Amino acid sequence: MDIRTEAAKMKRTAPVLASASNEQRNKALEAVSEALTLHADEIFEANQKDLDAARRDGVAPAVQKRLKFDESKLRDVKDGIAQLIRLPDPLGKIELARSLDDGLDLYRVTCPIGVIGVIFEARPDALVQISTLCLKSGNCAILKGGKETAETNRVLFGIIKDSAISAGLPENCMLQAELHNEIDELLSCDKDVDLLIPRGSNSFVQYIMNNTKIPVMGHADGICHIYVDEEYDRDMAVSVIIDSKTQYTAACNAVETLLINRRIAHYFLPVLANALKSNGVKIRGTEEVSEIIPCEIMGEDDFATEYLDLIVSVKLVDNVDEAIEHINYFGSHHTDSIISGNDDNTARFMQMVDSAGVYHNCSTRFADGFRYGFGAEVGISTGKIHARGPVGLEGLVTYKYKLFGHGDIVADYASGKKKFAHKSIRTGSDSCF
Amino acid sequence: MDIRTEAAKMKRTAPVLASASNEQRNKALEAVSEALTLHADEIFEANQKDLDAARRDGVAPAVQKRLKFDESKLRDVKDGIAQLIRLPDPLGKIELARSLDDGLDLYRVTCPIGVIGVIFEARPDALVQISTLCLKSGNCAILKGGKETAETNRVLFGIIKDSAISAGLPENCMLQAELHNEIDELLSCDKDVDLLIPRGSNSFVQYIMNNTKIPVMGHADGICHIYVDEEYDRDMAVSVIIDSKTQYTAACNAVETLLINRRIAHYFLPVLANALKSNGVKIRGTEEVSEIIPCEIMGEDDFATEYLDLIVSVKLVDNVDEAIEHINYFGSHHTDSIISGNDDNTARFMQMVDSAGVYHNCSTRFADGFRYGFGAEVGISTGKIHARGPVGLEGLVTYKYKLFGHGDIVADYASGKKKFAHKSIRTGSDSCF
Repeated sequence: MDIRTEAAKMKRTAPVLASASNEQRNKALEAVSEALTLHADEIFEANQKDLDAARRDGVAPAVQKRLKFDESKLRDVKDGIAQLIRLPDPLGKIELARSLDDGLDLYRVTCPIGVIGVIFEARPDALVQISTLCLKSGNCAILKGGKETAETNRVLFGIIKDSAISAGLPENCMLQAELHNEIDELLSCDKDVDLLIPRGSNSFVQYIMNNTKIPVMGHADGICHIYVDEEYDRDMAVSVIIDSKTQYTAACNAVETLLINRRIAHYFLPVLANALKSNGVKIRGTEEVSEIIPCEIMGEDDFATEYLDLIVSVKLVDNVDEAIEHINYFGSHHTDSIISGNDDNTARFMQMVDSAGVYHNCSTRFADGFRYGFGAEVGISTGKIHARGPVGLEGLVTYKYKLFGHGDIVADYASGKKKFAHKSIRTGSDSCF
Repeated sequence: MDIRTEAAKMKRTAPVLASASNEQRNKALEAVSEALTLHADEIFEANQKDLDAARRDGVAPAVQKRLKFDESKLRDVKDGIAQLIRLPDPLGKIELARSLDDGLDLYRVTCPIGVIGVIFEARPDALVQISTLCLKSGNCAILKGGKETAETNRVLFGIIKDSAISAGLPENCMLQAELHNEIDELLSCDKDVDLLIPRGSNSFVQYIMNNTKIPVMGHADGICHIYVDEEYDRDMAVSVIIDSKTQYTAACNAVETLLINRRIAHYFLPVLANALKSNGVKIRGTEEVSEIIPCEIMGEDDFATEYLDLIVSVKLVDNVDEAIEHINYFGSHHTDSIISGNDDNTARFMQMVDSAGVYHNCSTRFADGFRYGFGAEVGISTGKIHARGPVGLEGLVTYKYKLFGHGDIVADYASGKKKFAHKSIRTGSDSCF
């Protein structure tokens, strides 16, 4: 298969899919959901092949767990599809309606982005989530999943695509890339692909970002922080830190660096060290920290490290301002939390930390599309352009300006013969053409 | 001056400027407006030096006109600033307010993008517009204007920066780059600069896009189309085409290609050719067109040409679908217009043309921030990610998610001990913290 040729076909299909009604798109999602049940055995059989291969190849048990697609995973993805169907149509929303002058009406209306390429890790449920988010938002999708679930992906993709097409969505609305070299082909399709969403390791996402002219949405690293302020609840701080570090160590929203107010360090650090130790977390800290609790001494530059493991960096700071400076400099603008009972310090932190998520008195692990109530997510964006944080349906749409006139020309306004009125138009509903 | 060092300082200043209140930012804009009047003579004197140099260097008279900054331009920019002051605060708007569970509240709140680099053509009024848009939206700005207005830019920039700082905005909130080699330095500041907005020639914008990892917003070319449908008003079609082509030929929203329905060609083309000829517009067309009216014959590949001159491409098409296909393939997704009295064809065109602006029965020249009522624009975006079309205040903000909890941890939800509620929060106003 030649990805470039297929992407060009898809580009021509994009406006057709974009004009499918919400009912058509929902009907397709229902068909997908039914077909997944109908073909469950086929899916599980393919998944067994992937699992057998993983075992043969000595893939780590933690990773093997993620490859699995069983009855419970099937139920989860079907719940997700049902949720997506219930969510309001993200397309055709009028975001602005303004009469520029008598009989010259401007509307800003949401529409799909067009053709989206998603490259994701070996998790069969991710394939279902991503492809159904794209269908609901009217976007054509090129999907490339991790090779460890190649068999499961092939079967799932076939079921989803066939159901979507038999429900009336256009041919070429979805494409699966299966070979690793097809990623480089995809990166060169800047005329036809509107957006790339890479998920995976820091180095992989960096590679994508450095090797394409297509806009890339996502995050390379997740260096999340928790700052414990002078006024704080000790038990809350320990509980939130343990959850943020250990609830799912490999996640991008797990905490990597703890910033502790210097005035509470002598009292709080020993308590914290005990809790971390009993949860198997290794501490790395500055020399100052090592004088209070046992830890490996680390240098200043090391604070930009994402461990994705049971290791945490610890540093003392004078106040919330020093914490903010550290986070904005060393952080990755993902998710950062303050534990504090002081309103002024909290407001300052929430205002000045330049991250997609800024949290007060809760775990960084809440940064997630499902937990935010978006139904699902295609990824988490640390960029500030377009979508930021967990990206659900809203992050998969853009808008266009529609201007309706009666022969209006600019010369009449340039000459002063006519003047712009710029009045708001009251629209009956917030959904239109 | 070392741009990289200055950009790093600016990055640390960005959260401080971001937390300036709307009153402070408006106060700064008022100070800028007053100072412009106070220093008018100084500005005009500097501008005279630029104009003298331009004459000496044999700069084209049309370009010389754009370099001029006189009483009338001063009035215009002061009107623009007054408009900006009246516009509602783009920051701190709550876009989403959701209770994830009892005592765990999520808000999506608009905030500045951070540090924005704008590279623009030699037009002193552009410097004032861009810098005041950045001040109102709380963004730090690095400005690089065209060298032909270097003297005027230096004086204007000094006045604006001094007024902003004396009104209480932070030092380092604005920076002017004056040397051409500083553009390359700016392109390498991907750690500190959040967005680049280049304005200028196609090749210049392409150069920027190909030589930086910083997100770029703007457009390389403006290949705008007008499609004249079978059912049409002849006088309206001629008037809109002449306005779109000749009202300001060098603009990116001027029309470059006319697509004419084949069934009206024999009747309409001669009328059109006359009107174009009497307005000094040269016609290039397909062989088929040349059999009806005199024109230079052009090949299919030439339809991707942006003339920015009194030249227009003409092609015949069978129907609205062929017009849509042509526009989506050869166009630059900027602004395209249909002249039609047929509702179905119009709806199809408005829906399926994949451009920032799709127009019905009016001139493509309306694509402009001032005409849309945005006060001013920093540029026009043909990208689909983030802002599309004319970019005013709203295109200069992003958002962050703020989550307020009481020690909430994810483990409680993963274990099933707690369940997400996902209820809407009613907020008193739509502006907060």
